[in-house]
Amino acid sequence: MPGTPPTRFVYLGPEGTFAEQALKSIPAAERGSRTPARSVPEALEGVRTGEADSALVPLENSIGGAVGVTLDELAEGEPLVITREVVLPVEFVLAARPGTTLPHVRSVAAHPQASTQCRGWLRAHLPDAVVVDVLSNGAAAAGAAAGEYDAAICAPIGAGRHRLDVLADKIADHPDAVTRFALVSRPGPPPPPTGDDVTSLAVYIAHDRVGALLSVLMELAVRGVNMSRIESRPTGEALGRYVFFLDCAGHVADVRLGEALQGLRRVCADVRFLGSYPRHRFPGTGDRPIPAPAGLSDADYADAAAWLARLRAGDLS
Amino acid sequence: MPGTPPTRFVYLGPEGTFAEQALKSIPAAERGSRTPARSVPEALEGVRTGEADSALVPLENSIGGAVGVTLDELAEGEPLVITREVVLPVEFVLAARPGTTLPHVRSVAAHPQASTQCRGWLRAHLPDAVVVDVLSNGAAAAGAAAGEYDAAICAPIGAGRHRLDVLADKIADHPDAVTRFALVSRPGPPPPPTGDDVTSLAVYIAHDRVGALLSVLMELAVRGVNMSRIESRPTGEALGRYVFFLDCAGHVADVRLGEALQGLRRVCADVRFLGSYPRHRFPGTGDRPIPAPAGLSDADYADAAAWLARLRAGDLS
Amino acid sequence: MPGTPPTRFVYLGPEGTFAEQALKSIPAAERGSRTPARSVPEALEGVRTGEADSALVPLENSIGGAVGVTLDELAEGEPLVITREVVLPVEFVLAARPGTTLPHVRSVAAHPQASTQCRGWLRAHLPDAVVVDVLSNGAAAAGAAAGEYDAAICAPIGAGRHRLDVLADKIADHPDAVTRFALVSRPGPPPPPTGDDVTSLAVYIAHDRVGALLSVLMELAVRGVNMSRIESRPTGEALGRYVFFLDCAGHVADVRLGEALQGLRRVCADVRFLGSYPRHRFPGTGDRPIPAPAGLSDADYADAAAWLARLRAGDLS
Amino acid sequence: MPGTPPTRFVYLGPEGTFAEQALKSIPAAERGSRTPARSVPEALEGVRTGEADSALVPLENSIGGAVGVTLDELAEGEPLVITREVVLPVEFVLAARPGTTLPHVRSVAAHPQASTQCRGWLRAHLPDAVVVDVLSNGAAAAGAAAGEYDAAICAPIGAGRHRLDVLADKIADHPDAVTRFALVSRPGPPPPPTGDDVTSLAVYIAHDRVGALLSVLMELAVRGVNMSRIESRPTGEALGRYVFFLDCAGHVADVRLGEALQGLRRVCADVRFLGSYPRHRFPGTGDRPIPAPAGLSDADYADAAAWLARLRAGDLS
Repeated sequence: MPGTPPTRFVYLGPEGTFAEQALKSIPAAERGSRTPARSVPEALEGVRTGEADSALVPLENSIGGAVGVTLDELAEGEPLVITREVVLPVEFVLAARPGTTLPHVRSVAAHPQASTQCRGWLRAHLPDAVVVDVLSNGAAAAGAAAGEYDAAICAPIGAGRHRLDVLADKIADHPDAVTRFALVSRPGPPPPPTGDDVTSLAVYIAHDRVGALLSVLMELAVRGVNMSRIESRPTGEALGRYVFFLDCAGHVADVRLGEALQGLRRVCADVRFLGSYPRHRFPGTGDRPIPAPAGLSDADYADAAAWLARLRAGDLS
Repeated sequence: MPGTPPTRFVYLGPEGTFAEQALKSIPAAERGSRTPARSVPEALEGVRTGEADSALVPLENSIGGAVGVTLDELAEGEPLVITREVVLPVEFVLAARPGTTLPHVRSVAAHPQASTQCRGWLRAHLPDAVVVDVLSNGAAAAGAAAGEYDAAICAPIGAGRHRLDVLADKIADHPDAVTRFALVSRPGPPPPPTGDDVTSLAVYIAHDRVGALLSVLMELAVRGVNMSRIESRPTGEALGRYVFFLDCAGHVADVRLGEALQGLRRVCADVRFLGSYPRHRFPGTGDRPIPAPAGLSDADYADAAAWLARLRAGDLS
Repeated sequence: MPGTPPTRFVYLGPEGTFAEQALKSIPAAERGSRTPARSVPEALEGVRTGEADSALVPLENSIGGAVGVTLDELAEGEPLVITREVVLPVEFVLAARPGTTLPHVRSVAAHPQASTQCRGWLRAHLPDAVVVDVLSNGAAAAGAAAGEYDAAICAPIGAGRHRLDVLADKIADHPDAVTRFALVSRPGPPPPPTGDDVTSLAVYIAHDRVGALLSVLMELAVRGVNMSRIESRPTGEALGRYVFFLDCAGHVADVRLGEALQGLRRVCADVRFLGSYPRHRFPGTGDRPIPAPAGLSDADYADAAAWLARLRAGDLS
Repeated sequence: MPGTPPTRFVYLGPEGTFAEQALKSIPAAERGSRTPARSVPEALEGVRTGEADSALVPLENSIGGAVGVTLDELAEGEPLVITREVVLPVEFVLAARPGTTLPHVRSVAAHPQASTQCRGWLRAHLPDAVVVDVLSNGAAAAGAAAGEYDAAICAPIGAGRHRLDVLADKIADHPDAVTRFALVSRPGPPPPPTGDDVTSLAVYIAHDRVGALLSVLMELAVRGVNMSRIESRPTGEALGRYVFFLDCAGHVADVRLGEALQGLRRVCADVRFLGSYPRHRFPGTGDRPIPAPAGLSDADYADAAAWLARLRAGDLS
């Protein structure tokens, strides 16, 4: 029900992965129920059917890129909207059963993306260990706990949950790597504008690539709407047909973003609104919203609207 | 007073020129008073001071181009608006006092633009005649009537008014030449939209030419607003500073033209609105309004606005 | 050595997957040696170190999208170039040990992308079977052959190699799904233009997304260069920093693509050339190259170049 | 003959106008013969037929705008090229026969553009004088010398030539008003590039105004070519058909202007080259050429060309 805060949360499991850690950073989720799902489609299906109020799923990673399955699931089926984003530093640890020391590690379980992100560390510290691919960070920790592997690359929360010791922390090659998660709900009025919001869209364009994509960008550019992300995904029909996922600065309730959205609606084959929500801020880093370009502030929009109203009334003074 | 139909008309004189002929094609002017002015500034000043309700002045000629003084006078001083346009075929005649025949014509009085437009005819039919420059078509006719010259190039109305015989008609080299006149009034609510209107603007842009003019055109292009005319005039400050006079298809009351106007207001140094008025139509020529491009019709605008309203309310069905 | 045809090929293994099938469609590879690699980085590293002449790796899938690891590996490290593309229909089969029949299948091994693509079929024909995620199509077939699972979703070549029976073929929900592979070599002169070529690029743009991406597209659009693909990948530095992978119609040796490439080089932070190669054609489907837009054919380019040469010589005839 | 410096000059007469004054500022003309023509067409015809080597005609005035007849004559007929520009301050004086004093002036002869430019001065100092329109500044001075009018508004050179006293100088309302003249010759190799040149063009575009003009500006913008002037003139075919006169920064021999010219040739209905010549500089005013935008300098062009050559040779190092 719109307006009712969500109490039942689902997240991409298993337990002990970054998604659970991200969900716990949301106060309402800290108080509500938290259920792991086996996959992103399962998590979102739980929201669609009403079994859960909100789902926390990964959107993109600063190393691995977009999480395709999340984008595909948001673009198809019953509409869902993002109401909140959480950006979490990706901190990988090497964890093992108590008593294990680094020189004894001969096999390491890791999700392929995790081992890729720690390649430099592994080469330097465990040049002779065998890296075994497993299907999730949580599965890696579980495998190490069960003694199938000597150690696991996993999230700090995974080490704790499986009672593993941390042999080394911050082992990722890019110390600034982050993952961005989305909290997704059934449609309802978006959270109120905060002055520093993001609007996510899935945009389908006609076949001719250069011209059509130029039109999309021009609709945004003439309104001074900045894009912080653009991803393309195949539509599944044929090679060369794409849907673009855009993150734009601004809120659907803003005048200029609203005008740009109407423009996209007119020039695109289809536009799916995926939500307006507060931008995740990084306190203490000088992180702040990008101001509107000259002539495109809200005040400029208000001035132009008032001017047009006067013209229409015949008042040219 | 807005709403009161004009009854006192002033036009670019002298009597017997195309401007008087154009004014007479307007029913209200046919019934009202019609006073010639010695110049375009004088005609417009009459409207500004309230001595006249409306002024008929030339805007452009399909051969000679824009009438610079009219544009300059509209762009400066107290605001005035165009409420109607009249497009008149330019038909030049060679007129002389009764009894004169072509072989006797040795001197022809003509305004320089008129003799330029009849150059081919003069070369073919009066190769030895001296062409004397005078300051208006009316002055040419008056001079011929006074016996100062053997003949005059003038408008048909000028021949009649000065009781001259027409020795040859349709003597212009371009048989399709036309002049476009504007009926100008003090500001007031524009005439209602007809579905085939013109909106005239004076647009001031910042110094960098390519980028700034590109911005102006993009504001129009993304809303599918077509331009039927663009003229540049120096602002008088320095070489390289221009004001652009645009005629756009559409009415200030239209949604998409309104959105484009607001955009121009934001990106331009200044925009002066010069009126929205019905486009002059040429019956029987297949002349009809250019339809809006795909995705930019009024229905498309209404659809996009309704969609945005639903998004804002949280309705994504 | 440039000019020497490759004889030692490596491909993304294990044996029995689509990549091996694609490699075999290339005559030189049919005759040469073919070695499986455990990963895309390993396959490309083999070419970089000179152990292999060429590597066949997946670029994108019409359902799953870009293969991020391939793009990342091409964009970084020692330069490599694509010399050929192979587009292969994705035909999944359900395979099992001889004697197994569909009603007996309770567990199905599948790579997560494969089971995603066959979701509809599985729901209809094996609603009660457990789907077990494994790390490749080849591993699924091997697991079924070893009796770990009742059946596997794999490529036809995988069923044959592991002596499995095909219980059902063409089980993918999108019957037209294809995977596009690239044959990658060390740098050398590109294959000669065929009149229907593709040029692949990795393009880095500055931070402001709308404006910078607009500039890239304008460089292509003014030369009439069509894009058949655009993918964004994070650069790994931070969220919001991307490298764009573009496939453009044309060959680096073409005048107009050459002019566009120079333009990109000037406006982008960096451009990496990833090869010009013949476009994969689909015989019998009416598939043919998109003609150049009006005014942008090679003949138009030649005419403009000749005109400029005349102007520079002072010949305006 | 190309290469031979011109010695026979013609200019827009009569004697004693600004054009003669401008011509005298050119050293070769100071030494050569100088013949007045009665009109711009006559002056240019003299060059076309070979009677004169070069013609000096007005191009535009910072108050009155473009000189339409000059543009029209350059755009039609046998090609001519501008080889030099001269920008002259417009200094109007009030001149009268010796002995006349300001209080006695009751009639003032003036070309209409001249009296327009001095309107403020006339209102302040000669509020009761009658201003009589005449056809040129030279004719005004001649009329005052002949006693037809009490005084004349003319150029300083006109007062001297007709032995008139200057009653008041610098009487124009805009003290910075200038006129720009062009020295026009038969086609030949353009003067060598100076690093601060202007290239003039006449550009014909197809009917749809916004799209076609956008294309023209984009061809310039992507090469960083700045426009210092854009004028539209009717083509004479019908209202709404225009030819655009552009002045672009750069020389036809420059790489980037050459590339832009080729682009215009391809996208426009027609392009007429009107010459490349050194920009008039105003010493002591801080006047200097506008530098190329980032990424569009000659060095950037050379770097991109060298890079493309390497790519084509297969050298990606």
